Amino acid sequence: MKFNIAVLPGDGIGPEITQQSVKVLNAIADRFDHEFIFEEAAVGAAAIDQVGDPLPESTLNLCKRSHAVLFGAIGDPKYDNDPSAKVRPEQGLLRLRKELGLFANIRPVKAYEALIENSPLKPEIIQGVDMVIYRELTGGIYFGEKSTSADGKSASDLCFYTVEEIERIAHLAFKAAGERRKKLTLIDKANVLETSRLWRKTVKEISKSYPEVELDFLYVDNAAMQMILNPGQFDVILTENMFGDIISDEASVIGGSIGLLESASVGEKNALFEPIHGSYPQAAGQGIANPLASVLSAAMMLDYFGLIEEAKAVRLAVDVSIQLNVCTKDINRDNHYSTERVGDFLESVI
Amino acid sequence: MKFNIAVLPGDGIGPEITQQSVKVLNAIADRFDHEFIFEEAAVGAAAIDQVGDPLPESTLNLCKRSHAVLFGAIGDPKYDNDPSAKVRPEQGLLRLRKELGLFANIRPVKAYEALIENSPLKPEIIQGVDMVIYRELTGGIYFGEKSTSADGKSASDLCFYTVEEIERIAHLAFKAAGERRKKLTLIDKANVLETSRLWRKTVKEISKSYPEVELDFLYVDNAAMQMILNPGQFDVILTENMFGDIISDEASVIGGSIGLLESASVGEKNALFEPIHGSYPQAAGQGIANPLASVLSAAMMLDYFGLIEEAKAVRLAVDVSIQLNVCTKDINRDNHYSTERVGDFLESVI
Ligand SMILES: CC(C)[C@H](C(=O)O)[C@@H](O)C(=O)O
Ligand SMILES: CC(C)[C@H](C(=O)O)[C@@H](O)C(=O)O
Repeated sequence: MKFNIAVLPGDGIGPEITQQSVKVLNAIADRFDHEFIFEEAAVGAAAIDQVGDPLPESTLNLCKRSHAVLFGAIGDPKYDNDPSAKVRPEQGLLRLRKELGLFANIRPVKAYEALIENSPLKPEIIQGVDMVIYRELTGGIYFGEKSTSADGKSASDLCFYTVEEIERIAHLAFKAAGERRKKLTLIDKANVLETSRLWRKTVKEISKSYPEVELDFLYVDNAAMQMILNPGQFDVILTENMFGDIISDEASVIGGSIGLLESASVGEKNALFEPIHGSYPQAAGQGIANPLASVLSAAMMLDYFGLIEEAKAVRLAVDVSIQLNVCTKDINRDNHYSTERVGDFLESVI
Repeated sequence: MKFNIAVLPGDGIGPEITQQSVKVLNAIADRFDHEFIFEEAAVGAAAIDQVGDPLPESTLNLCKRSHAVLFGAIGDPKYDNDPSAKVRPEQGLLRLRKELGLFANIRPVKAYEALIENSPLKPEIIQGVDMVIYRELTGGIYFGEKSTSADGKSASDLCFYTVEEIERIAHLAFKAAGERRKKLTLIDKANVLETSRLWRKTVKEISKSYPEVELDFLYVDNAAMQMILNPGQFDVILTENMFGDIISDEASVIGGSIGLLESASVGEKNALFEPIHGSYPQAAGQGIANPLASVLSAAMMLDYFGLIEEAKAVRLAVDVSIQLNVCTKDINRDNHYSTERVGDFLESVI
């Protein structure tokens, strides 16, 4: 089969990790006789530097006409401490999500047996954790009206949700739960927020169509505690944009292997795959970045293409690299491999 | 000296723990020759049951004319799963905060050496943690305009902040940092929210008046990770209402002793002291609730009254009870004491 893949390496370590995924995808194409056509484009700080826009029209168009987007990472410290900067790298990512209609961000979080020692949590707490977070990605306070008063003395952000926005991601989450341990937890703040009450009501309604899935509710503050005290209780988590940002990042570190966590952002017509870690500018260009999260994101892309066996082959290669400790120094402290050598190893295993 | 203290036991375990604090405060009054006049009033689900209002006028008036409020806990499961309930216990607490102008919620989080084993985090991560969180409590998305469309198909919550609201709590936080390790971390989401950019700008401006305090910034998603990976990096945290709710609850469990965490909510004229744990209805009436967080909140009240020696005496008593393991079963698993016996012990030590 033939697929067009837009490659957006982005900032910091983005380019070097994405390169390994391309390598792995090429190996898959060879072995399974597919054709993957990669086309690269700039995004984020890299795009601001080149053309003054974190999401140039040409990049957006490329993404729209591709079957999927392989995304690196975004962000550069030179923009971080200037709250009044007119152009910021993050705007590129937010606009891309909105323009492509990527309403569901899907993040699996799994404790890798071989890496449990790396977790900040005690082993008995993290053992066996296996959850997936469905975060709404194109609504809520991220995209509601923002304003600053003329005198600069006040500001506001509107959190806004429609029933439709809630329904479409809720269906995805319930379906996923049905194929997993059949438990869905909605995280909200229904004791304070009107939007959360709309979420709770809508999700309750939808749950009637999925009688095999057990639904429960957790206030976001309590969820932030439960994620540390007993993460094993979670199967599928469903939540709105801002709570999803916070809770999924919290979840991402409990396994001790943020360099291994992949994500998919999907919509009606488009999909984007990216590691959940950031651009780590301090590590850029040193060959120490862990490419596995990007490679596992590429595996999610293969699943999305319907190439299930191919996705399995990628995951198997990653498992082997972890078993044999062919890993970058975040995982293999004593005798680490470079980003590129990990990529080469994966290629050779596939 | 003479002080009027409004006692609002509230729901669940609220009454039994608050009773121990009253006992301890009476012991302090005896020993240091003060007069504490306690007057009790209903709040929360208890008040709804009694008079149909989670914050009856008489309760509010009592709080207004008292020197301080000793608060138990709020919340009852019978209201939790009904998002459309017209009256909810939490409304009582939110209204009380607003009416009393309690704009700063102050939560110290400390790792107790004797309890490090209880932490879900590895000992080396939690050891030595000692931070205090300043959460803005009467603004932001909690109190901005809320609405649901007439057809029920959409809802919104407005997050709104003024420079003044940010300044007054920022000054408190900088002063606290100046008396501690001189580091202040602002937690926000300035890469997405207009209100966060206002926070960042305002706090930067104020920091010029506190040159001895080092100021840094953390996005809330990153903060949720750092709280687990390296909580020792924090000294004073400053943040807005919703982020404070989430991050402070996350912080509250890392020490493994949520039953020990106290809080103060202060304004220009009033102050309220409460344990940060909830009403734990499942434990109510069994004599197993840990009264120490409430008792330590009473110590914060004494500090607020300017009774520094008295506050120290309370904290010393608590330390002794922990050292000797005269503790409820959340801490002393094998040979635990009842809520009341812990209170009696503290009284006898003072
Ligand atoms: C970069 C930032 C705007 C983004 C977000 O908040 O959504 C990031 O934190 C993420 O989670 O992908
Ligand atoms: C009960 C609830 C409204 C409250 C809040 O969100 O502020 C509680 O979680 C707290 O932190 O005191």
